[in-house]
Amino acid sequence: MSAHKNIYIGMLGCGVVGSQVAALLEKNNAELSTRAGAKLILKKIAVRDIKAAREGINQSLFTTDAQSVIDDSEIDIIIEVMGGIDPARELILAAIKNGKSVITANKALLALHGADLFTAADNKGVDLYYEAAVAGAIPIIRPMRESLVGDQITRVMGIVNGTTNYILTKMDEEGRAFADVLKEAQSLGYAEADPTADVEGIDAASKAAIIAGLAFHSRVSVDDVYREGISSITADDVAVAKTMNHVIKLLAIAELTSDDRISVRVHPTLIPRSHPLAAVRNAFNAVFVEAKSAGQLMFYGPGAGGAPTASAILGDVVAVARHRVSDSVGPRESDYADRAIAPIGDTKTQFLIRLNVADKPGVLAAIAQVFAKEGVSIQTVRQSGRGNDAELIVVSHGATEEALSSTVSALSKMDIVTKVESVLRVLGSQS
Amino acid sequence: MSAHKNIYIGMLGCGVVGSQVAALLEKNNAELSTRAGAKLILKKIAVRDIKAAREGINQSLFTTDAQSVIDDSEIDIIIEVMGGIDPARELILAAIKNGKSVITANKALLALHGADLFTAADNKGVDLYYEAAVAGAIPIIRPMRESLVGDQITRVMGIVNGTTNYILTKMDEEGRAFADVLKEAQSLGYAEADPTADVEGIDAASKAAIIAGLAFHSRVSVDDVYREGISSITADDVAVAKTMNHVIKLLAIAELTSDDRISVRVHPTLIPRSHPLAAVRNAFNAVFVEAKSAGQLMFYGPGAGGAPTASAILGDVVAVARHRVSDSVGPRESDYADRAIAPIGDTKTQFLIRLNVADKPGVLAAIAQVFAKEGVSIQTVRQSGRGNDAELIVVSHGATEEALSSTVSALSKMDIVTKVESVLRVLGSQS
Repeated sequence: MSAHKNIYIGMLGCGVVGSQVAALLEKNNAELSTRAGAKLILKKIAVRDIKAAREGINQSLFTTDAQSVIDDSEIDIIIEVMGGIDPARELILAAIKNGKSVITANKALLALHGADLFTAADNKGVDLYYEAAVAGAIPIIRPMRESLVGDQITRVMGIVNGTTNYILTKMDEEGRAFADVLKEAQSLGYAEADPTADVEGIDAASKAAIIAGLAFHSRVSVDDVYREGISSITADDVAVAKTMNHVIKLLAIAELTSDDRISVRVHPTLIPRSHPLAAVRNAFNAVFVEAKSAGQLMFYGPGAGGAPTASAILGDVVAVARHRVSDSVGPRESDYADRAIAPIGDTKTQFLIRLNVADKPGVLAAIAQVFAKEGVSIQTVRQSGRGNDAELIVVSHGATEEALSSTVSALSKMDIVTKVESVLRVLGSQS
Repeated sequence: MSAHKNIYIGMLGCGVVGSQVAALLEKNNAELSTRAGAKLILKKIAVRDIKAAREGINQSLFTTDAQSVIDDSEIDIIIEVMGGIDPARELILAAIKNGKSVITANKALLALHGADLFTAADNKGVDLYYEAAVAGAIPIIRPMRESLVGDQITRVMGIVNGTTNYILTKMDEEGRAFADVLKEAQSLGYAEADPTADVEGIDAASKAAIIAGLAFHSRVSVDDVYREGISSITADDVAVAKTMNHVIKLLAIAELTSDDRISVRVHPTLIPRSHPLAAVRNAFNAVFVEAKSAGQLMFYGPGAGGAPTASAILGDVVAVARHRVSDSVGPRESDYADRAIAPIGDTKTQFLIRLNVADKPGVLAAIAQVFAKEGVSIQTVRQSGRGNDAELIVVSHGATEEALSSTVSALSKMDIVTKVESVLRVLGSQS
């Protein structure tokens, strides 16, 4: 290990995260260099607008020519924090082709084109690291990829989107409506002006794909992920969950089915308040991992933000720089198991169904018959309200999504059912 | 990377953990070998009594000659799960000298002789891995050593002993006395017949030393750790904590002082029920990490047990085997910062003091005067009971242990103070 080697770094993008990475690389340079075993030198930063003010970063580092960063033969490591699919994808592939190791926080890109990128890095013998892509500063990639590599993960459930967890927390604690809380989250900067990627679960689906691939040593694309967001969750849904001592969370779930396929999905889920994930409030993230030998583990922390994300990226920078210094490379992305994806229809969970019904004798019997006919077993039924306000809250035992879907369809055709108010999944003791 | 290389493993000890490691290495061999990139072969197991029944392990692997395992030139990796200081220390040093990488779960040994062992491994260019030594299956060593290496950790607080957490949980939830719950824990197998190492914080102190060394890139020995156990915690202490909406936990704390020294200690601590550590119940462990950029992270899971500990060891086996295959080595133990240890007297925390006092006018004024004279500022005072049962509960603002000690000494000499019932530390918003 040569103690005086320099490791040159190029960065693509310099927004909230990139600025923090550059500032911290400068501020803590002596310490980070000691840990890496080589002097870390940020050499170039590619940006769209060179004039945009970025405090505390040497102005001479900036260029609008991203290709010149990729082609700089002195640069060892590329940090990609520009986001988006193209040109990030081409630039990363070109950097790998040029023998550079790459660190990216780009979950959307990894979830869509991860297979190509990892293959390219593997063929070239360089590192492609991405701790920041899932759950911000929470170390989850490395623990799953390395610490748990001697175990068999059976299920991962993550609260991996801070915006939706903030909204659901407020709805739970203050009984407010989705639209109302969303507006507040936007004014506080917790939600984007266009909140679609967050509230419809698109961001969480990318992370679910990455987690599922890692956990089950297979290639999983975002297109494999079944997805429902939280925009249709009502204050009534939250209140009903509360009466059952549950809380609604948007979960990214990756699990092995009994026939060794991968079920991967994002949807709102009722979880018991006693579950460790229930206590994850506001914009915090957490990933709950179940493994055969290890049992139940949880990783908790801030899921986003400039400094936390920069922390994850800089951890990768030091790791990758160490590899450069010792002329080695980290473990390659593992996809040997090549498991199939189970379609959502096969996925088995417990369901909660809220029905507006006519309050007259025989209603419950008629409804129970529909469930029985579709082979969905009922765990509990509760009626709230009377007369025209009567509502039935049915919680099923574990049933497939397919059986559930037929049941809902049959229920909605019944004369005595005024409306199927909502259908929600429940994380039960059996699911 | 040669795909067909064999990696031979020798094991020292075969108790609860070792049996699981051997069984899982056999059962999941194909999968673990694929992940390691080489066939993993358990070749020899050194035990004291070769005749002890160990189900599912090939009897021909056992030997009572530990030295023959260390000296086997074919063996690449030694797993040490025999425990104790000697001969584990000599055997590990000999294995390293013979060019073998070592995986150990032996926290007591690492906390006492870690410096020598890591130096030996570093000089020889082999791995010395120990994920299982702290908090069982919870990945905490690798996240601190690698994921957070780009950040600056400022404080780590861990619930790292399952036995004491089980006892404190029962005392909190059921209002029972320490001795009573300890007896139950012993009958359930959660506590040893001689519970000293657990209840007096000795086990936790070893883990605190390992955590502090890792977090602050320095060498920290168990002798540097200030230690108090839980055996003097009373049902009344727990009840008082409860009225303040706090819970008492045995915490292993490692923090940087304002003058960049390391404060490392194990003691019972009142923590607010809203703190993520407060929800860690029964025999579960959790490590709460505060870092400058990442913010607050928590790692939660089972802290002990055969299978969880085996999971951590097997993760290290795969990692170390990968290094053997690619002829590389993991990051060396980092101690460049060489920070000094702050004596406990300098440590600043908030305190709760329970005093039996004479219930007469002027008592509070006299007591407040003692605090003022010692420079300890009072946050709250509450009186419970009247007459001969009067008790004052004083919570201080942040004060040094030294000032606190003088205060307690002065209080105990006062005529109006019948008894200083207890002195407990409080994790306040300021501490």
